[in-house]
Amino acid sequence: MIIVMKQGASKEELGEVKKRIRELGYKPHVIHGETRDVVGAVGDERGKTVLHSLESMPGVENVVPILKPYKLASREVKPEPSVVEITSEIAIGGGELLVMAGPCSVESEEQIIETARAVKAAGARILRGGAFKPRTSPYSFQGMEEEGLKLLALARQETGLPIITEVVNPRDVELVARYADIMQVGARNVQNFALLKMLGQLEKPVLLKRGMATTIQEFLMSAEYILSEGNRRVILCERGIRTFETATRNTLDISAVPVLKEQTHLPVVIDPSHATGHASLVPSMCYAAVAAGADGLIVEVHPCPEKASSDGPQSLRPADFAAVMQKVRLFAEVAGKRL
Amino acid sequence: MIIVMKQGASKEELGEVKKRIRELGYKPHVIHGETRDVVGAVGDERGKTVLHSLESMPGVENVVPILKPYKLASREVKPEPSVVEITSEIAIGGGELLVMAGPCSVESEEQIIETARAVKAAGARILRGGAFKPRTSPYSFQGMEEEGLKLLALARQETGLPIITEVVNPRDVELVARYADIMQVGARNVQNFALLKMLGQLEKPVLLKRGMATTIQEFLMSAEYILSEGNRRVILCERGIRTFETATRNTLDISAVPVLKEQTHLPVVIDPSHATGHASLVPSMCYAAVAAGADGLIVEVHPCPEKASSDGPQSLRPADFAAVMQKVRLFAEVAGKRL
Amino acid sequence: MIIVMKQGASKEELGEVKKRIRELGYKPHVIHGETRDVVGAVGDERGKTVLHSLESMPGVENVVPILKPYKLASREVKPEPSVVEITSEIAIGGGELLVMAGPCSVESEEQIIETARAVKAAGARILRGGAFKPRTSPYSFQGMEEEGLKLLALARQETGLPIITEVVNPRDVELVARYADIMQVGARNVQNFALLKMLGQLEKPVLLKRGMATTIQEFLMSAEYILSEGNRRVILCERGIRTFETATRNTLDISAVPVLKEQTHLPVVIDPSHATGHASLVPSMCYAAVAAGADGLIVEVHPCPEKASSDGPQSLRPADFAAVMQKVRLFAEVAGKRL
Amino acid sequence: MIIVMKQGASKEELGEVKKRIRELGYKPHVIHGETRDVVGAVGDERGKTVLHSLESMPGVENVVPILKPYKLASREVKPEPSVVEITSEIAIGGGELLVMAGPCSVESEEQIIETARAVKAAGARILRGGAFKPRTSPYSFQGMEEEGLKLLALARQETGLPIITEVVNPRDVELVARYADIMQVGARNVQNFALLKMLGQLEKPVLLKRGMATTIQEFLMSAEYILSEGNRRVILCERGIRTFETATRNTLDISAVPVLKEQTHLPVVIDPSHATGHASLVPSMCYAAVAAGADGLIVEVHPCPEKASSDGPQSLRPADFAAVMQKVRLFAEVAGKRL
Repeated sequence: MIIVMKQGASKEELGEVKKRIRELGYKPHVIHGETRDVVGAVGDERGKTVLHSLESMPGVENVVPILKPYKLASREVKPEPSVVEITSEIAIGGGELLVMAGPCSVESEEQIIETARAVKAAGARILRGGAFKPRTSPYSFQGMEEEGLKLLALARQETGLPIITEVVNPRDVELVARYADIMQVGARNVQNFALLKMLGQLEKPVLLKRGMATTIQEFLMSAEYILSEGNRRVILCERGIRTFETATRNTLDISAVPVLKEQTHLPVVIDPSHATGHASLVPSMCYAAVAAGADGLIVEVHPCPEKASSDGPQSLRPADFAAVMQKVRLFAEVAGKRL
Repeated sequence: MIIVMKQGASKEELGEVKKRIRELGYKPHVIHGETRDVVGAVGDERGKTVLHSLESMPGVENVVPILKPYKLASREVKPEPSVVEITSEIAIGGGELLVMAGPCSVESEEQIIETARAVKAAGARILRGGAFKPRTSPYSFQGMEEEGLKLLALARQETGLPIITEVVNPRDVELVARYADIMQVGARNVQNFALLKMLGQLEKPVLLKRGMATTIQEFLMSAEYILSEGNRRVILCERGIRTFETATRNTLDISAVPVLKEQTHLPVVIDPSHATGHASLVPSMCYAAVAAGADGLIVEVHPCPEKASSDGPQSLRPADFAAVMQKVRLFAEVAGKRL
Repeated sequence: MIIVMKQGASKEELGEVKKRIRELGYKPHVIHGETRDVVGAVGDERGKTVLHSLESMPGVENVVPILKPYKLASREVKPEPSVVEITSEIAIGGGELLVMAGPCSVESEEQIIETARAVKAAGARILRGGAFKPRTSPYSFQGMEEEGLKLLALARQETGLPIITEVVNPRDVELVARYADIMQVGARNVQNFALLKMLGQLEKPVLLKRGMATTIQEFLMSAEYILSEGNRRVILCERGIRTFETATRNTLDISAVPVLKEQTHLPVVIDPSHATGHASLVPSMCYAAVAAGADGLIVEVHPCPEKASSDGPQSLRPADFAAVMQKVRLFAEVAGKRL
Repeated sequence: MIIVMKQGASKEELGEVKKRIRELGYKPHVIHGETRDVVGAVGDERGKTVLHSLESMPGVENVVPILKPYKLASREVKPEPSVVEITSEIAIGGGELLVMAGPCSVESEEQIIETARAVKAAGARILRGGAFKPRTSPYSFQGMEEEGLKLLALARQETGLPIITEVVNPRDVELVARYADIMQVGARNVQNFALLKMLGQLEKPVLLKRGMATTIQEFLMSAEYILSEGNRRVILCERGIRTFETATRNTLDISAVPVLKEQTHLPVVIDPSHATGHASLVPSMCYAAVAAGADGLIVEVHPCPEKASSDGPQSLRPADFAAVMQKVRLFAEVAGKRL
């Protein structure tokens, strides 16, 4: 931490700041500047947000953190990329581009089986589908719940595709974990710390979506919640952030891919469906994601988008998804990844 | 809903859209424009997000909702303001300006009792204090949990002040409800629908904070989750939204007060502490909130901000809080409210 | 500036950084931390963005500025508030709350004279009105140009009210200055540096509006452009920033008032009309602005908003403006200002 | 336009709205809904923002535009993509991916010639370089002005590369046009309408950068200013928008590429340098841009970024740029474009 003193702060004020820094277990180191002094607090500041309270001391102008606050998620602690194993045959973060696809919500046996077969044929390796749906309106379809999980398991049995599905309530973690191969945390729950801690105690991979207004740093702190409980199989997912632009549902922060790659060893997946909200924009965002270096994609596919219970406008039809996958394969090759 | 057809959409495409609108239980009404047709879907569209999926039909350019999606929270359903009773003597939403104050976190018996006495003396009617703390970092202080709740109850016994405290996990709703007079939902949980539904089944007032990236409309939909479960005692709290500006922790959306007053009958409270993040900015934001027509304030006060476990920089010292309250009283009078 | 070295940066890399800091005229001061070194570059860093380029040197992680980059606009250089004189009788920044009011655009002699009389009667001291209009669409009304300036001058002659009007093109500075008492720079021109420099050479007060995406710091740097050319009569105006919220045209950043008051000596005005975009929200935002400590208001008033050439929805009718002014007077008193 | 009436609006109010719609030259068409009426105003609404003022009429809740406000920029008016000719040999918007590269600022003859040669060798077809620099601080380097233009012309003579350079003041349009092959409008001037109109009267291609807080729709309206003056050679450039995220200088809105491709026929270029602000992020954003379907790139390259007068941290070294171009070539092939 760097503590910036006010112009004209007194010697006594500086003395008190130094004393308080020592009390908190750090070493103060003063730089006398031309217009003011700054004090470095030397020591491991990660997670020590208590240093921020120095800002309340007389003579202090502000407090500037220097170190990133996460540890286990950082490249500094683990320089090489993490390869997260899903099954004995499927992993993410290595040489393979992993594509997850399926409907927003599980709606019926026919719908999920038909979609599973279609996305598998097109090259997807994981089936996505929501059984518990966090919906903005209490009057909207809230998902088929356990019945939906059973249909997902049936689709897995039929196609061999592992399944990813969302859990929204700490109470349901155990239930969802009985069915899912990957536990998904949605954007709205990125700082649902009770949920994150429980997932940290599982032996299942977790796909953590970035929230609509979550900074990269906060996103990695949320990953740290899972990691610090012992579960190292965390996959990060950028799905668009909220900005002033309304032409798209959210704004896909594509530069989050290289930023995350610099700061963390965890694999990074892009969700172009929620990011854009419009099916016509999904193909080019799949290509951009692969070119930017993403480790995977999670794409909404529905056999009949105009009748979907949720997120119809952003869902690809199976034939369109198959066409996208052909081009994804070519971009992946240039990016040095196998589909 | 208004369905805007593409320029040059065919008669058949228009026919299919009309057919689908009827299937969904609405009446289609076509306006033939100069460059394109638009179709009104007449009927109660609230909560019927399924109409959005029409956007996937051939010939459709986009779908524009006309009605607000909430009902119970709206002024249309209940034109007069709701007065939410906290105790037999204290209510919010009527002629009184209700001030809630106290530390971010409960840290010790001495700290909470001392603060409770100070804020009471200054004119606060409710004591705030966190026992379960949602913290960005897993390495930060996470709150005293039930021990903290007990200390809050003790402070209530000592001072007579009802208490407001946050619940973050659906699992803890029952526990927190045993102690709290008002259940607080933090900004990060504004779309934790499992939690909202449980709070909707309580007979306790709920203070619902707006999320950092929650639109007014989404905020009212979250209130609707609580209301639609039967609990009508919902208090809304604006606490700053996330913008590009970094001079403040968040940006206080002060115009949310009149916007909410137009759209809903629920009382509105401002949290100037989280909104700004700096104690020096809190007083003027208290005054602005009262002048804008807020029904209450929730303010962080700590006997020694530089030693606070959390949110020190934004906490007022008791003496400063007392001075602020004197001026709040004068502004409240002009605004037509009693402190 | 603080230069943060990468973990594991070599001695040579550190040496090069120190060398380069010296070459640029600063003194390097190294703090050896637990996981990395940080180097303070001691010296006046204001305006010396060249130090940022150190980020490109091997071994450097990032560069953190410590000082605010503006000088003349800062409280450090001039601690007492600036009182900007408009005429021999009217000033802003002292004990008076200065209200400027009038239509968005000058549309006719009748319209501007009628409005001028009405706003004067209600207590406004300055008449606003646009003659050169920056409009998003090339097909929208672009203002009456010099003809509009003449009508403003006529209204001034009729009522005695000094006039404020916008200049959008450096070419028109001289022309507008022949008529205006205060030169207004609109939000879209806040970083039109050519225009700012010319205004810095005038002997006229300038009202500088914050841009939709301008940080407080950038806003003060724009003021610095005017100040550094010699014109010290700069008035700052917050008029809403662009955020994700669409219930209002922009989001009024009311906390900009106390933030600016801490950082600069320049007077601060609020424009509640552009900030909200809806007439019904303007009154409460006027009150909030006064309570927050603003030095003035600039409000759109139109005799017949539904027929306005621009910005009708956000314009108050004269009678409504008069009612607002009565309450503004009461709030101003509590805030310690005379209307 | 759709005019939404308030619930309970009277027949008289509806009658007045219909009357006013007719006065403005549109045909009113009423849909009687279950809870309120909505009125379609049939007619070409583009540029007719005057309809918005209906929002001020009694009984009106709000006004919803249906048509896009631009004409000449739209796909509806010109469905096929525009190929903008730069010279007889170079064009953008067709089958070629056009790469423009060079330093942020022209600093010396040696610097610009060396860079021009390097970027040409790597495959760039246009040389970029700033002579007039809009800088946030008045104390920063403001560019070499005409001297810089002359050096650019020299570099063109040496290498044969056409040059693109920024114009910031309407006064300098003629001067810059004497040297430049493409006139660049920077992000800060995207709504400098005086400048846009002058550029609309030139016979030179114009590269128009999106502003930091400019919506896609506003961006196309700015293009419309140039087009409507007669100059059809407009190139759009996305360079990052301002969001809450601070890990990057701006947030590259990569989905702007397909959105613009749907809405306009104009070519689209990506500036990954300003979008990210860090050289290490530029390569992957070049690849993503190409994969997303961009028609070109504009990239900052400097022989010695740590000594650059401006934007050093985001500039690539020539050798790194050459490596990026090799991979860009491969991605362009998959995207169906020649480098």
